[in-house]
Amino acid sequence: MGSVRDFRPIFFVIGVLLTTVALAMLFPALADGIAGNPDWLVFLAASLFTLFIGVALALVNRTGQASLSLKQAFILTTFSWVIISAFAALPFVFSDLGLSYADAYFEAMSGLTTTGSTVISGLDDAPPGILLWRAILQWLGGIGIIVTAIAILPMLSIGGMQLFRAESSDQSERVLPRTAQLAGAIFFVYLTLTVINAVAYWLAGMTPFQAICHGMTTISTGGYSTSDRSFVMFDDPAIEGVATVFMILGSLPFVLYLHAVRGGVKRLLRDTQVHWFLGLVIVSLLALSGWQWLSGGMALDDAFRYATFNSISILTGTGYSSADFSSWGSFALPVFTILMFIGGCTGSTTGGIKVFRFQVLYATARVQILQLIQPHGVFPMKYNYRTIPDTVPGAVMGFFFLFMVSFAVLAMALSLMGLDYITSISGAATALANVGPGLGPIIGPNGTFQSLPDAAKWLLSFGMLLGRLELFTVLILLVPRFWRD
Amino acid sequence: MGSVRDFRPIFFVIGVLLTTVALAMLFPALADGIAGNPDWLVFLAASLFTLFIGVALALVNRTGQASLSLKQAFILTTFSWVIISAFAALPFVFSDLGLSYADAYFEAMSGLTTTGSTVISGLDDAPPGILLWRAILQWLGGIGIIVTAIAILPMLSIGGMQLFRAESSDQSERVLPRTAQLAGAIFFVYLTLTVINAVAYWLAGMTPFQAICHGMTTISTGGYSTSDRSFVMFDDPAIEGVATVFMILGSLPFVLYLHAVRGGVKRLLRDTQVHWFLGLVIVSLLALSGWQWLSGGMALDDAFRYATFNSISILTGTGYSSADFSSWGSFALPVFTILMFIGGCTGSTTGGIKVFRFQVLYATARVQILQLIQPHGVFPMKYNYRTIPDTVPGAVMGFFFLFMVSFAVLAMALSLMGLDYITSISGAATALANVGPGLGPIIGPNGTFQSLPDAAKWLLSFGMLLGRLELFTVLILLVPRFWRD
Repeated sequence: MGSVRDFRPIFFVIGVLLTTVALAMLFPALADGIAGNPDWLVFLAASLFTLFIGVALALVNRTGQASLSLKQAFILTTFSWVIISAFAALPFVFSDLGLSYADAYFEAMSGLTTTGSTVISGLDDAPPGILLWRAILQWLGGIGIIVTAIAILPMLSIGGMQLFRAESSDQSERVLPRTAQLAGAIFFVYLTLTVINAVAYWLAGMTPFQAICHGMTTISTGGYSTSDRSFVMFDDPAIEGVATVFMILGSLPFVLYLHAVRGGVKRLLRDTQVHWFLGLVIVSLLALSGWQWLSGGMALDDAFRYATFNSISILTGTGYSSADFSSWGSFALPVFTILMFIGGCTGSTTGGIKVFRFQVLYATARVQILQLIQPHGVFPMKYNYRTIPDTVPGAVMGFFFLFMVSFAVLAMALSLMGLDYITSISGAATALANVGPGLGPIIGPNGTFQSLPDAAKWLLSFGMLLGRLELFTVLILLVPRFWRD
Repeated sequence: MGSVRDFRPIFFVIGVLLTTVALAMLFPALADGIAGNPDWLVFLAASLFTLFIGVALALVNRTGQASLSLKQAFILTTFSWVIISAFAALPFVFSDLGLSYADAYFEAMSGLTTTGSTVISGLDDAPPGILLWRAILQWLGGIGIIVTAIAILPMLSIGGMQLFRAESSDQSERVLPRTAQLAGAIFFVYLTLTVINAVAYWLAGMTPFQAICHGMTTISTGGYSTSDRSFVMFDDPAIEGVATVFMILGSLPFVLYLHAVRGGVKRLLRDTQVHWFLGLVIVSLLALSGWQWLSGGMALDDAFRYATFNSISILTGTGYSSADFSSWGSFALPVFTILMFIGGCTGSTTGGIKVFRFQVLYATARVQILQLIQPHGVFPMKYNYRTIPDTVPGAVMGFFFLFMVSFAVLAMALSLMGLDYITSISGAATALANVGPGLGPIIGPNGTFQSLPDAAKWLLSFGMLLGRLELFTVLILLVPRFWRD
């Protein structure tokens, strides 16, 4: 196990990841090449440059060492998202779009964290390379966070994630023996779902290119679209239906799909996190349907259709929109804000606080109230039919507190740059919870993040990173004691 | 110790409290009598009616039993605020104001919880009785909550309040041997501070009547004024200075004043909750002064003056205003919202989450981060130089979570009634944290709660009660198991 200052194994892995990113850049190069768009050269050059750096990093830092220390795992996780975004941003700068580096980094970080906030408008006329690249970033970011959440965060005991350690390390219960194999199997499930999703989109009426792009950004709950108008462009209940199903599938714990594939579909159906999440989906779509029907003047079927799609899009942190839900009146705004905070299940591609933490918080508050009633009673806390280990409630509550503090600080900092109340608040929430659009006229579903000052874009990029890596992974690097051996 | 269904000792105490309230109603009767306003009859009638009910309750339920069970203490605490508000509302209904009962109950609850939200406009021309009655309600509510927070809540272990149990029950450290004596001593301190405060206001230029009313609503961090324009009416730095000092004094732990009186002023100066609170005061007034100076176009001295007064007014939950801080631009709104949530020290008259809980939350988050860095390290958690008992962090975090959930539910429910984003959010926050004014054009410092629908007023009254009694005290009564023996 290495010292905290031994960066070699970290840079080795980042080198390997950059090499993957470089290879991924060849797809948009190919797409632009076929479309006859000169940007193919930009993607090729960015690919070669990234490949060169990646291979060099990997070669120089090869140690033959197979494992990382805990501290190295923290550094690797944060650094990989920061550094890969830096390279993934290059095509946005040098392509026809000519984004500033702040804008390009924002767009890349938003993609790799599966947030889906964008600074680009004019997507409908953009060359295929850029559209494909945005989709690929979300797709890679999606599988990246699933593997991180399953293999790395539980080991690091981040925010109560030790609850899920048993899933992969407990001998009697293990799904697959080793992390690499587990990651491979998850990747296979992820790829399969993506292909089915894309085919379903195509059958529902999308062009093959649209189907591929949206397939990649749906299953990753990313939310980048090929149109400025997102799903308003299609205005098709069948396409929205496909999206709804796969946004939900992207929000469930991927480990359970492995069980399901191996015949253990019962575990997926019995999982209480899945029950709570689906319950939340139903409650929020019914509440918003009712509101739009009774007070928004929509027909009942329209209210149901738009409320379903948009509430699930926000709850899962996807961020597609099929209507300007930001103008749905008073009740809709706090509801969407709260849905942003909640997010989906852990071990999926969604962001936010996540459903299992609310289950643990609920169990804790419940036991506290029971204890007030019977001070000498003993009330076991259960999660998913098992007793919650002692360290989990505190870790979850610490996470919840830090999430709220990060949100408050981010919202204050944004408002300090002159952003209005709803833009500051919803901007901070959407970044931290990796959702995508905010609320209000500027960054709402009909707007973009383009007009914000550069400082706000850097801050939001940091917010997305913080939220994506569950706060502690990033914040711990800012503690001086971390860097002592 | 009595059964949970034995209401006699509870109604006995409430009878005694109602008798006190009935006697207090004689002061506004006297004031209106002197001023020649016919409302003196309303106050006298309300006083006699309340006296009759109070004495009857006390006589019928006399048991000679000296102590309450834990459950009876919960019931007593919640019921006393609910029932006293019902009687305290009577003069608002039958006086010249002619408020509806929903409005009157809102005004009474807002007074007794020292919130300070109002539905009344035209205060400047109101008869003295009503003005005095509003001030008396806040003054009684202030001493009520201090005694409750010192004598009852720690015993009930509400939201980590067991931290302060040692203060009154630990043999070696006890301030005064018995609750009644403690309450008496605290009352004496409270009364003395009120008198000094009123005299200071008078010396600074208020009329004697204004000085008495504002003295009662400052030390109780209540915030009811004798003018619709609150402190804008005086527009006097000296008066604002007096208010600032006594709002701060009203936000410190009153138990420490007892020590100070007995020569132990060092304990007040060494208390870390006091340090954190004063630190917060300084940070927020500097941040808002800077903002108003640099971006609001105020002169530096004006910026400092208005930022100091209004930020302290909101942080302490008083709710006076000396400027329309709701129009201070983007940065001011989230800052004021966050200040509302924080509040002052425990064992004072302020509401909100309270400073000691943030200290415990900070200590918990810090230890969690250190534990991530050194998984086998042992990190003791300290509060005020002592180790925090094991049950406290969980209780505090449970409180924080329930506060956030209550806030979210309240904001959603308000928005369901058609209130806009900033009104719903700041209305929920200001009620739950017992501050007073909200933000925005409707319920902001220049507005009132008058125009809200009745349902919203009842909901906000409930929110004030919930916040004032630290959530658990009220919520526990809604659990069926509580009512089983």
